[in-house]
Amino acid sequence: MSQNIGVVDSGVGGLTVVHELMRQLPGESLIYLGDTLRCPYGPRSETEIKRFTWEMVRFLLPKSIKMLVVACNTATAFTLKELQEQLPIPVIGVIKPGARAAIKYTENSHIGVIGTEGTIRSQAYASALKQINPEVSVDSLACPSFVPMVEQGVMSGDNADNIVSQSLQPLQRNNRIDTLILGCTHYPLIKQTIQEVMGHNIAVISSSEETAREASTILEFYDQLVSGTVPPAHRFYTTGDIGHFAKMTESIFKTSVDRFQAVTIEQAII
Amino acid sequence: MSQNIGVVDSGVGGLTVVHELMRQLPGESLIYLGDTLRCPYGPRSETEIKRFTWEMVRFLLPKSIKMLVVACNTATAFTLKELQEQLPIPVIGVIKPGARAAIKYTENSHIGVIGTEGTIRSQAYASALKQINPEVSVDSLACPSFVPMVEQGVMSGDNADNIVSQSLQPLQRNNRIDTLILGCTHYPLIKQTIQEVMGHNIAVISSSEETAREASTILEFYDQLVSGTVPPAHRFYTTGDIGHFAKMTESIFKTSVDRFQAVTIEQAII
Repeated sequence: MSQNIGVVDSGVGGLTVVHELMRQLPGESLIYLGDTLRCPYGPRSETEIKRFTWEMVRFLLPKSIKMLVVACNTATAFTLKELQEQLPIPVIGVIKPGARAAIKYTENSHIGVIGTEGTIRSQAYASALKQINPEVSVDSLACPSFVPMVEQGVMSGDNADNIVSQSLQPLQRNNRIDTLILGCTHYPLIKQTIQEVMGHNIAVISSSEETAREASTILEFYDQLVSGTVPPAHRFYTTGDIGHFAKMTESIFKTSVDRFQAVTIEQAII
Repeated sequence: MSQNIGVVDSGVGGLTVVHELMRQLPGESLIYLGDTLRCPYGPRSETEIKRFTWEMVRFLLPKSIKMLVVACNTATAFTLKELQEQLPIPVIGVIKPGARAAIKYTENSHIGVIGTEGTIRSQAYASALKQINPEVSVDSLACPSFVPMVEQGVMSGDNADNIVSQSLQPLQRNNRIDTLILGCTHYPLIKQTIQEVMGHNIAVISSSEETAREASTILEFYDQLVSGTVPPAHRFYTTGDIGHFAKMTESIFKTSVDRFQAVTIEQAII
């Protein structure tokens, strides 16, 4: 019987989703594949994004997965629909959970979305938000410097502050949103910096937590939550350098080092 | 094409779920049936609870519903599984969404649950919580006086304070939970009183909001969210007195009287 939740991402950002999955579903075993070698996906063409995502999916499929989480907004924007149509298991992305949370939080119906160029270009958030509530207005902004910054381990300090502050200026000038969706799973890692730049009156939504919640909902709905008391074991794969990946992983999971014992990291040739 | 979300409840408590559904899914049309004539379900036998719930479901099924929400904890505890097995549409209850939220909120893994005698007797919450995380401990407490109190419109004031305070004493004596699930959809109507009695260090979880969220998740997953711009129209049915039901409904929806124009209330013979 398939026991694992499969998670694919363009790099390490999807580990923020993994972190929430471990917290909200502590009995589940996860198999993660981060395509760090070819990260970022944001500036790539639709054709490339689709091909890379499918390559990751084909790597995970034989590993006994009962659900696939596409933990990358760019990959979700371009491939979710066809993955859902073609795979025999439930597939969930990170865009609609974030959109749903924003609709819950906003009081003035003005929602901001930041993401990679690919995600913003796809208009996936605007479309998801308006599908649920056509009355909302959406200010979208691509922040192409954030993913490379995070992948290089720069998540706080003056350099990070400057890059974030400069990137978010257009949203601040409009000065009308009350809710901001972090439309990229890397961004929760610089959430504090973003929150400080935007001000504490803005609700900053991380799609990672909401995606874990929805994974739980869908698994329960299909009666596929793990049962029994076998402790979970997690496998993390990277297409890139294991040392760098391990370092990033430790930095993301700093609050749960104990759980981290159950994780093995391997290299993936896809 | 089926366009409505059907909601059944033992009385008016399920309107707290309806309220959240309207807020989080403003385009959806709802058909609500409250069995106020035979409320409360809590002290009734399993056989009666099942029979009454099925009678409600059979009343709603011909009304073009695409999803059924069992917005009553007692009915969920005893009938959810067989409804899910036997109906051709998605069926969701109120117990697992509340359990999932509590697991997210608790920091010390001690969770309290209050509900009707039926819900507590069924151990549905304890079982749902432990299915997700076997490590949590659960303090359950039946509060049989809350539903009659709310159905009579007593939701605040000295009388309500006294009843709530006295009922919750056993949980306060134990003094170990950090999260309390309102395991009955009537209880959000006295949430403030409960919060004050328990103290503001306790996270009080209303299953209504979480259930609306999960309805949204499941409908999106099935690609069944309403599309187009037809304004929603809601129908509320009661098996009991229309005047009393209308009064309770207005009291619950006090913050959204404008939306209320789209609601008709009719009597149901089931």
